[in-house]
Amino acid sequence: MADDDTPPRLKLGMVGGGRGAFIGDAHRIAARLDDRYELVAAAPSSDPLVAFASGRDLRLPEDRVYTKFAAMAQAEAVRDDGIDVVSVVTPNHLHHPVCTAFLEAGIDVICDKPLAMTLAEAREIVATADEAGRFLGVTYTYTGYPMVREARALIEAGAIGAVRQVHTEFAIGWLAAPVEQDNPSKQAAWRTDPEQSGASFVVADLGTHCFHLTEFVTGLELAALTADLETFVPGRQLEDHANLLLRYTGGARGILWVSMVAAGEDVGLRLRVYGEKGHLAWEQGQPNELRLAPYGEPVRTLVRGGAGLSPAAQRATRMIAGLPEGYYEAFATLYRDYADVLTARRDGSEPDPLALWAPTGADGARGLAFVEAALKSHADGGTWVDFTGA
Amino acid sequence: MADDDTPPRLKLGMVGGGRGAFIGDAHRIAARLDDRYELVAAAPSSDPLVAFASGRDLRLPEDRVYTKFAAMAQAEAVRDDGIDVVSVVTPNHLHHPVCTAFLEAGIDVICDKPLAMTLAEAREIVATADEAGRFLGVTYTYTGYPMVREARALIEAGAIGAVRQVHTEFAIGWLAAPVEQDNPSKQAAWRTDPEQSGASFVVADLGTHCFHLTEFVTGLELAALTADLETFVPGRQLEDHANLLLRYTGGARGILWVSMVAAGEDVGLRLRVYGEKGHLAWEQGQPNELRLAPYGEPVRTLVRGGAGLSPAAQRATRMIAGLPEGYYEAFATLYRDYADVLTARRDGSEPDPLALWAPTGADGARGLAFVEAALKSHADGGTWVDFTGA
Amino acid sequence: MADDDTPPRLKLGMVGGGRGAFIGDAHRIAARLDDRYELVAAAPSSDPLVAFASGRDLRLPEDRVYTKFAAMAQAEAVRDDGIDVVSVVTPNHLHHPVCTAFLEAGIDVICDKPLAMTLAEAREIVATADEAGRFLGVTYTYTGYPMVREARALIEAGAIGAVRQVHTEFAIGWLAAPVEQDNPSKQAAWRTDPEQSGASFVVADLGTHCFHLTEFVTGLELAALTADLETFVPGRQLEDHANLLLRYTGGARGILWVSMVAAGEDVGLRLRVYGEKGHLAWEQGQPNELRLAPYGEPVRTLVRGGAGLSPAAQRATRMIAGLPEGYYEAFATLYRDYADVLTARRDGSEPDPLALWAPTGADGARGLAFVEAALKSHADGGTWVDFTGA
Amino acid sequence: MADDDTPPRLKLGMVGGGRGAFIGDAHRIAARLDDRYELVAAAPSSDPLVAFASGRDLRLPEDRVYTKFAAMAQAEAVRDDGIDVVSVVTPNHLHHPVCTAFLEAGIDVICDKPLAMTLAEAREIVATADEAGRFLGVTYTYTGYPMVREARALIEAGAIGAVRQVHTEFAIGWLAAPVEQDNPSKQAAWRTDPEQSGASFVVADLGTHCFHLTEFVTGLELAALTADLETFVPGRQLEDHANLLLRYTGGARGILWVSMVAAGEDVGLRLRVYGEKGHLAWEQGQPNELRLAPYGEPVRTLVRGGAGLSPAAQRATRMIAGLPEGYYEAFATLYRDYADVLTARRDGSEPDPLALWAPTGADGARGLAFVEAALKSHADGGTWVDFTGA
Repeated sequence: MADDDTPPRLKLGMVGGGRGAFIGDAHRIAARLDDRYELVAAAPSSDPLVAFASGRDLRLPEDRVYTKFAAMAQAEAVRDDGIDVVSVVTPNHLHHPVCTAFLEAGIDVICDKPLAMTLAEAREIVATADEAGRFLGVTYTYTGYPMVREARALIEAGAIGAVRQVHTEFAIGWLAAPVEQDNPSKQAAWRTDPEQSGASFVVADLGTHCFHLTEFVTGLELAALTADLETFVPGRQLEDHANLLLRYTGGARGILWVSMVAAGEDVGLRLRVYGEKGHLAWEQGQPNELRLAPYGEPVRTLVRGGAGLSPAAQRATRMIAGLPEGYYEAFATLYRDYADVLTARRDGSEPDPLALWAPTGADGARGLAFVEAALKSHADGGTWVDFTGA
Repeated sequence: MADDDTPPRLKLGMVGGGRGAFIGDAHRIAARLDDRYELVAAAPSSDPLVAFASGRDLRLPEDRVYTKFAAMAQAEAVRDDGIDVVSVVTPNHLHHPVCTAFLEAGIDVICDKPLAMTLAEAREIVATADEAGRFLGVTYTYTGYPMVREARALIEAGAIGAVRQVHTEFAIGWLAAPVEQDNPSKQAAWRTDPEQSGASFVVADLGTHCFHLTEFVTGLELAALTADLETFVPGRQLEDHANLLLRYTGGARGILWVSMVAAGEDVGLRLRVYGEKGHLAWEQGQPNELRLAPYGEPVRTLVRGGAGLSPAAQRATRMIAGLPEGYYEAFATLYRDYADVLTARRDGSEPDPLALWAPTGADGARGLAFVEAALKSHADGGTWVDFTGA
Repeated sequence: MADDDTPPRLKLGMVGGGRGAFIGDAHRIAARLDDRYELVAAAPSSDPLVAFASGRDLRLPEDRVYTKFAAMAQAEAVRDDGIDVVSVVTPNHLHHPVCTAFLEAGIDVICDKPLAMTLAEAREIVATADEAGRFLGVTYTYTGYPMVREARALIEAGAIGAVRQVHTEFAIGWLAAPVEQDNPSKQAAWRTDPEQSGASFVVADLGTHCFHLTEFVTGLELAALTADLETFVPGRQLEDHANLLLRYTGGARGILWVSMVAAGEDVGLRLRVYGEKGHLAWEQGQPNELRLAPYGEPVRTLVRGGAGLSPAAQRATRMIAGLPEGYYEAFATLYRDYADVLTARRDGSEPDPLALWAPTGADGARGLAFVEAALKSHADGGTWVDFTGA
Repeated sequence: MADDDTPPRLKLGMVGGGRGAFIGDAHRIAARLDDRYELVAAAPSSDPLVAFASGRDLRLPEDRVYTKFAAMAQAEAVRDDGIDVVSVVTPNHLHHPVCTAFLEAGIDVICDKPLAMTLAEAREIVATADEAGRFLGVTYTYTGYPMVREARALIEAGAIGAVRQVHTEFAIGWLAAPVEQDNPSKQAAWRTDPEQSGASFVVADLGTHCFHLTEFVTGLELAALTADLETFVPGRQLEDHANLLLRYTGGARGILWVSMVAAGEDVGLRLRVYGEKGHLAWEQGQPNELRLAPYGEPVRTLVRGGAGLSPAAQRATRMIAGLPEGYYEAFATLYRDYADVLTARRDGSEPDPLALWAPTGADGARGLAFVEAALKSHADGGTWVDFTGA
C-alpha cells in the first residue's frame, strides 16, 4: 500500500460540533479514521461553558479552545503550530461568516452542506476562496461510498449506455410528528427554523445531497426542473417534503423525492440510474453492494472489495469484500481525499486525480442554485424552471 | 370452507387470445384455477387458420369457434347453452366494438385494460353496460394480489394514519431497444402502434394499472397531475416513458413512473404509501409480503396467509403462509370475484361485499380519464391539470 | 407453443382430500391448472357424510363418489369412462393399501409423499407397479419449481464445477407449540401420530423432500449419514426436529436440517450447493430467483423466464419473467410432466425426456430408505450409517 | 454523552501487522476510531527492513520500532512513557511467546484469535495473565456488532423463550482454489501451514469465532459435538471445510459450518437462534439489522440505533439508525470496551458491566478446547465428543 512516505498529519480545527451537536462527531471520526489529521483547535460553541466542556471532551488544551470563530481564525493563522484546515460544522446560517473568516485568514476550509443560506452567499464564499487561493471542500458525504464511486466509474465506462432516467430519493421519517414543537431537540429546532436553516428545509438539507449525487454519478448536468413542495406538519415553517421532476441536458429525465416526514424510514437514501443498456441501483441501507442490471442478462450484485472494480472504488475501500464498511468510512474517504489534495498543494505536487472526485465549493454553490430553482418553480405553481445557466 | 353448495361453473367465452397472443392464456388459467368457469366458445382470431387452430388447442368444438366477434355474440346469445360471460383480450382498438357487441347481446363482459382507446369510448362502453343491465369487469390484475388487498384494508383501518405520499412505478425493460422495429413480435407491434394501442402507450398500458392501484389502496381520489412524457427509442410513435407528479384530494402527494425502456427490469411494479403514522411497501417481485413500517417501531413483514390478516386478504388467499402464490392466483382472484358477483346476480342474492373490490367499468373509464389528463399536461408543457371533475 | 394436437384430458380420480384435508385441494388445482386432467371420481373420505359432501363440493356425480377406495378401484377399472389415473392424498398409513389397490386394478397412480410408512412397504408398492406395468409418480413437489430445475441443469452443465457441499433445510414453525394437544386439527393430529404417520415425523414428512431435492439437483448419491433427532415439545410421540450430516459418493458433504418447531418460520425450504467454481442458492420464499455466485465474480440473480435459461427451466415456465409463479405452478408442473408421460404411454410414443425429471416410485422408496437410515443412526447414538447400498 | 471527564488515551503497542499483513491495520483503525488509544510503539516484523519501513508508515519514532518482541516488552516496561497495552496480531504460532513476554513484563495484552496453537498453550497464557495480574483480551471481533449484542440481550430477556436450535456458519470462498500453492500470499501461506497455524485451519480460524458467538449470544454452554472435517483442495495440509453438529447443556441443538472453500462467498458469517417463542437471525452482510420472528406474528426487522433497543446495543452504537456502521466500528467497540476495562483498573473503579461482554483470555482458551474436541471427533470417525468438562 504505502510505498511512499506517509505524509505528516494535517492540523485540523473545527467550528461547531460541541456537546449536543450531531454532525461534529462524525466529522471528527471521519478525520481520524485514516490518521491523516490531528484535531488541535476548536470553537465548539459561542457559549463558553459548552465550548470549554467540549474542548475538554476533545482533550484540547485550553488555549486552543475558542468561543468566537473570528478570534480562532486570527489566532490560528499566526501561530507557528496553527491549524492547516478547519472543518465548519455549524448550523447553516453561520457557514458564510465562518468560511469567510477562515478563508480570509488563509486557512483551508472543509464545510458541511448546504454551503450557505442562499446562492448569493455561496458564490461569495467560493469567490473568497478563489481570491485567497485557499481550498474549499463541501461534504456531500454520500459520494464517499465506494459503490457510489463504482456507479460513476461504470457509467463513465459505458456500462449502461446513455442515461435515460435517474431516480434519487432521501426519505427520513424523523419529523413525521411535530418533533421540533413537542420535544425540541437542538437538531430539530435549528433545521426547521428559517433563521438558521434558510428558505428551504428538505430541499436544502436532503435535496442538495440527491442533486449532487445524480450529477456526480451520471456526469449529466441538470437542465430544468419542476418542484412540488409541501409542509405536512402543521405549524412547521419550512417545507418538509418535496417531489421534483428533472430534465438533464442531452434528454435524460429524473425524479427526485426528499422528505423528513416519510414515517417509518430511517435514512432512506436510494439511487437508480437507467441507461440504454441496463441500470444501476444503490441504496445506503446496503452500501457495500451495487446492483448492475444489464439489458437481457441476469442482475449482478457488485460488492465493495470484489474483483474487477474500478480504481475509483478500490481507492475508497479499506477492507476486503464481505467485511462491511459504512457511513464513517464513506465520510472518511472525503477527508482522505481532501488530505491528499491539501498535502499535494503544500508539496506543490499533483494529487491523485481520483482525489478530485471529492466535492468542492463549486459543487456547494451549485447545490444552492438547485435549491433556489426548486423554490422558484414551486412559487410559480409548478412551472418548469430552466437550469441551464446555473 | 365450502359449507354452501358449490355453484355451477359459468360458461365462458373469449375474444382474442389465439396462438401467438400473450394475455389470453393468463385469462384462461385465471378462469380455470378456482374451477368457477368452463371455456366453451371463442373467437380467437379473425384469421380462420389461427382461429380454428387455436380452437383445437383449447379443445373447443368447431361450432363454438368463431372468426367474427359479432357473429359470436349473436350466436351465443341465442343458444340454450350459450356463454354467460365473455373475456375480451384483444388489442385495445377492438375493446369498444367487442364489448359493445356482447353487452348489447345481453352477455356480461370481462375486459382487459385499458378499457378503450379514448375516454369517450370508455364512457360509451360503460353506458352500454348500464343500459343493457350487464356486468362489466376490467382486469386491473394487480388488485387481486392478497397483500395489495391487505394494504387497502390496513389503510382503511388507519394503520398508517392519513396518507401523505404515494409512490407507484411500473418499470419494464422489454422495449429499451427498438424491438418492434428490429424483430417485430405481435405484442411489440400492436402496443406501439397508435392505430391499435391509442394515443398513449405506457401511460395507457402501465399507468392505468398504477393509477387504479393507488386509488384502490389508499381510497384517495386524484385531484391534479403534471406529466413529463418521453419517447426514448428513435422511430417509436408513442411515449415509452413517463414521469408524473400527483396531488390527491385532501392534500396527499404522489409520484408515478412508468417505463417500457427501464433496461434491466422485468416487470417492476412497486407501491409505497406513506402516512402520518408509518408506511406500507409492496412489490410484485415479492408479492406474498407486505412491509409495514410504523413510525418509531421496527418494520414488520406481513405475509400472505399469516395470522391476523384482514378478511380481504384472507379471501384472496388459497394456500398457507410460506407456500407462495403468484400472478395467476392474483388474476384468478379477480375471476373468482367476478364469478361471485355474476352468480349472485343470477341468484338474485347479494355477493360478498369484498367481491366488489374487483375493478369494473367505472374504474376502466377513470383510467382513460387519467390517460387523457396526462397527455394534456404534457402537451401543455408540463402544466398541472385539474382532475377533480374526472 | 402448441403445434402438436392438444392431447385429450386425462380422467383423474382422487383418494383422500375431502373437506378438512390440506393437500387434496393443492393436487386438484395443480391438476387443473394446465388443463390436462378432468377430475371425474373420488373417494374423499371413509365417512359417507364427508365423502358425499366433498363430492358435491367437487361437482362429482354421486355414482362417482366412493367411501371405500377398494370399491372405487374395482368400479373405475371396469367402467368405459373409468379413470386413467388416481391421486392418492390420504394420510401416510393408507398409501400402501390404496396404491396397491389401484395398481393391481390396472390404474396409474400419483401418490403424495412419503410413499409409505416403511421402506418395505414402499418397495412393495414399487414392485406392484412394475408387475402391473403401471406408472407410479410420487409428488416431491419442490422439484417442480423452474429455478430448482435450472439449478440441476446448471450443475449438469458444470456451472459450479464438482459439488463439495450441499445445504438443505426445511424449517416450519407450526408445531413449536403443542398444537396437536391443545387444539387438535386433523392435520396436526395424524402427522404426529405414529399409527398414521409412521415411525418418523419430520424426517419422513420434510426430510424426504430435502433428501430428494439434493439428489435431484446435484446428481449425487448419498453415501452415509449421521442423524441427531429430537422431540422438543413434551408429550409429542415423534421427533419434531432433526440435524443431519451427509456424505455423498465422490466426497461431497452435506448438512440437512428439518424442523416443525422452528418458531417464526412459515415454510422455510432452502437449498444451497457449493462447488469448485461457485455456488447456487434457492429458497422457496423467493422461488422465481436462483442466485448463481461464481468464484471471484459478482453474484448473478437468474430469474424464471429470463433469457438464457435451460430447456428444463423453460419447460416448467408459463409466464414471462417478473410476473411471479408460485407453489401451485410448481405442483402443476409435476402433474403436467405426469400427463406427458401417461399420454406417451397411451400413445406408444416417447415422452419429452425432461418430463422424466418428475419423481417416481423409485424416488419414493429411496426416501423411505433415507428415513430408516436416519432413524438407525439416531438409535445408535449418532453413528455414521452407510447408505451406499440403499 | 460524555459528562464525565474524557479519560486519557491509552498508550498502545503492537506486535505484528507490518507491511503486507492483513489484520494489523484493522486493529489500528479500531483502536483509533473512538480516540481512546495512541499507537506509540511496535514490533511490526522480525525483518528489520519491513519493521522500519512499517514504523515509518505508522509515523513512529525509530526508538519505538523493534524487531524483536522480547526486546520491546522489556524496553517498554521500563520507559516512563512505555506502552499501557499491546496488541498481538502475529500469525498464531507467535501468540504464546509474545503474550507471555508482555504479560510477564507487566503489560496488558489484546491478542487476536485463536489465542494459541493448542489448548495447553492457551491455558498457559491465561495462567500467566492471572499470575501477573494483567488483563488479557481476545478479539472475537463479531461480538462487537451492536445487533449481535442486541440478540444476546433479547435472548437474556426471554424474547424467544428457551433456545432449541442454533445455526452458525462462516463461509468464505477465498481458498476454493489452491491459492496458497498457485500464487502464494503471506496470508494464504501461513494460515494453511500447520507450523504457523496449528493442527486445524478452518475450525481454529473460523470455527472459534462461530463457537464463541453461539455461547455469547445464547448464554448456553456446549455439551457435546460431532465433527466431519474435509480438505477439498488437493495438496492442502489442513482441513478447509468442516460440518459439525452440536448439543448444548439443557438440550438445545446446533449446526455449525465453516469453510474456506465456499466458492462465491465473501465473508458469509450468519447466525440464527430458534427458541420456543420465535427466532432471531443476523448476518454480517447486513450487520445493522436483526430479524426477530416471533411465533405466529410478523417478522420484525430491528435496526441499529432504532427505538427500544437494549442498553447493550445502544452502548455499541455511535450513529443514528439508517446511517450504517460496519466491521471497523464493531472492532472498535471491542477496543473501547477494553479501554473502559483498562482505565477502570488503573483508576481502581468498576467498569460498565457491559464492557465486560468483550471477550477475554478465558474465551480464548475455550475456543482452543472447541478446536481440540472437533479434531478428536473427526479422528475418531465422527463420534460425539463430550464437552461438559471443557
